[in-house]
Amino acid sequence: MEVYDCIRSRRTVRNFKPDPVPDRVLNRILRAGRWAPSSSNVQPWHFIVIKNPATIQTMGGIATQGTFLGQAPLAIAIVMEDAARPQLDAGRVIQQMELVAWSEGLGTCFVGLRAEEQQVALKELLGIPSEMELITILPFGYREEGFAGRGVARKSMAEIAHSEKFGQSYTTA
Amino acid sequence: MEVYDCIRSRRTVRNFKPDPVPDRVLNRILRAGRWAPSSSNVQPWHFIVIKNPATIQTMGGIATQGTFLGQAPLAIAIVMEDAARPQLDAGRVIQQMELVAWSEGLGTCFVGLRAEEQQVALKELLGIPSEMELITILPFGYREEGFAGRGVARKSMAEIAHSEKFGQSYTTA
Repeated sequence: MEVYDCIRSRRTVRNFKPDPVPDRVLNRILRAGRWAPSSSNVQPWHFIVIKNPATIQTMGGIATQGTFLGQAPLAIAIVMEDAARPQLDAGRVIQQMELVAWSEGLGTCFVGLRAEEQQVALKELLGIPSEMELITILPFGYREEGFAGRGVARKSMAEIAHSEKFGQSYTTA
Repeated sequence: MEVYDCIRSRRTVRNFKPDPVPDRVLNRILRAGRWAPSSSNVQPWHFIVIKNPATIQTMGGIATQGTFLGQAPLAIAIVMEDAARPQLDAGRVIQQMELVAWSEGLGTCFVGLRAEEQQVALKELLGIPSEMELITILPFGYREEGFAGRGVARKSMAEIAHSEKFGQSYTTA
């Protein structure tokens, strides 16, 4: 899939087909994360691949803001170690993973895990050292037949784009 | 350019041809940012398009960790307003912009602007309200002829990928 078309067509996916994700596709997703740029090129990330349905179901029970995680055939936990900009670098990893997944017919949705008890429970379940930062656990799976995604309306370009200075409207030539 | 190939071939670019970036390309970069997902879909971003060479040169003087910014024909400031996860959402925007730019023959490099005096000076120069968060100013320009990019060696997959639990090595089937 052409990169611009991929970005333009991508939608957030919360319902997955039960079909397993082939290792070929999983490896492309992992490599897409591995090839993300990072602050000072320190690559401060770990990816935990989770396929065990019992573990995935348990995680879905803990992630109260993203219970759909529990239904996915595959999950990847994004963990940052000694990162100067953990959230920023993780955002770049996640986006590269999401785009490649989308181009392969899959989808994902960011799952927020900010509550302290969620962090503690998930780190224990996955054996993540307590000093590391668990950013999210991304569910992955094939999109259901006919999935179009409602797509979230975007703010107009006039609302978000400025020319030369903040507040000066950007207009295309 | 195919999305996986784009992710695989992308390199950080710090030297740019002086050629102006056509509006068609600039608009694709802006749209790629606009179509990024965001926490709770609030789209908490502003993009300031800067083409004025005098402004760009001044910014390069302020950004002591990214003076190459001053030589770019185009810059886009990424500003977050009332964002729950400003760094994470910005990382997703930046990565979508960077990939589309790369597919069009351009390049960019993240410019760190964390020093308080840099933030103050740049916000004043660009008229950014002080309560907003200036994440970075991305320089954009065409890559020089023959640019290959040295590419930063990546950690091996065995170092960063784990299976089911942190510390259990992930091996591909």
